[in-house]
Amino acid sequence: LLQEAWTTVEALKRKIRDEGRVLPGNILLVDQFLNQQVDTALLRKMADHWYLHFLEKDVTKVLTIEASGIAVGVMVASRFGVPLLFAKKYASMNVTPDAHEVDVFSYTKQTTYRVSVSKRLLGPEDKVLIIDDFLARGNALKGLLELCGQAGAKVVGVGIAIEKAFQGGRRVVEDYGVEIVSLASIAELDGDRGIVRFVGD
Amino acid sequence: LLQEAWTTVEALKRKIRDEGRVLPGNILLVDQFLNQQVDTALLRKMADHWYLHFLEKDVTKVLTIEASGIAVGVMVASRFGVPLLFAKKYASMNVTPDAHEVDVFSYTKQTTYRVSVSKRLLGPEDKVLIIDDFLARGNALKGLLELCGQAGAKVVGVGIAIEKAFQGGRRVVEDYGVEIVSLASIAELDGDRGIVRFVGD
Repeated sequence: LLQEAWTTVEALKRKIRDEGRVLPGNILLVDQFLNQQVDTALLRKMADHWYLHFLEKDVTKVLTIEASGIAVGVMVASRFGVPLLFAKKYASMNVTPDAHEVDVFSYTKQTTYRVSVSKRLLGPEDKVLIIDDFLARGNALKGLLELCGQAGAKVVGVGIAIEKAFQGGRRVVEDYGVEIVSLASIAELDGDRGIVRFVGD
Repeated sequence: LLQEAWTTVEALKRKIRDEGRVLPGNILLVDQFLNQQVDTALLRKMADHWYLHFLEKDVTKVLTIEASGIAVGVMVASRFGVPLLFAKKYASMNVTPDAHEVDVFSYTKQTTYRVSVSKRLLGPEDKVLIIDDFLARGNALKGLLELCGQAGAKVVGVGIAIEKAFQGGRRVVEDYGVEIVSLASIAELDGDRGIVRFVGD
């Protein structure tokens, strides 16, 4: 199992190196296998990885955020045999009385959007595994943690496909005392030379 | 297999009856098992259904549109062992030179948005199965068919979870000569009484 976990991480890192594109401004494009085209075989392995890690946590629901978190999230939820719940993003700041809501600042887009889940769908009985494709500064993740807080749901873990470790988002999760498992952790993106350096390399 | 296909369709129809909410204006909310919370066990059965139907078509890629198509699409793509590709929606009408693009009018939102897939990710070598959660008037689906046309990709089939048959979107697909498999086909939504009537009931 350890061997397999290692293989999955190496496969993801190889994909990032071979098919990812590094652009100026610390941007990593992975639209060829994760963000627009989705490599379902790789996703399945990633889901297995988190499943083995969080198996003992009695996960009742996987939570992610639209849009690109959905593909990863649904594979993980299916592996656990639980529902996926995805928070919706709204540009408008309308208040919806039957939803848990929080405002999130997007550093990339330099704009604030509202993140929302129906109150009917998340409650104190839930043990939530949060899954997302990216972790950068942690604003979206903090929003999801706050939604769970509003709902009284317990967050039992966080799984991230690609962590931009140099942007410090991990601290957000640690402040909540929640365990986080990132598969590929990036120490540095060199946009000029198009190079990715992983933590530990 | 026929028995199982029948069971899946019945399970989806039961979910729609029991957990769907019919609102005035021909709106069917299925956020409890398809559109915000996703029943992964049901999704897996639905994926099996389309897999058995389109098995002989040498599908190379599953195409859907963000956001709520992604959950269904990724399960189907995983079942076929091929990548999922999801078209992105943009409010802005900026032209992206390296993307296939088409403008789609949303009747529900009374606005036009741009639908886009990278040219690198869809080409003449592809045999595409289009998957979406809903079919109403068929505007989004027509957009996806046009994207495939621009790319020179062959569309080998269309799978729809819930078809609002009374809104006529099926004609769009038939005009393209493509086979469509809808799981639940709705003849009428009665918003005042909150009742769903299926085709054939």
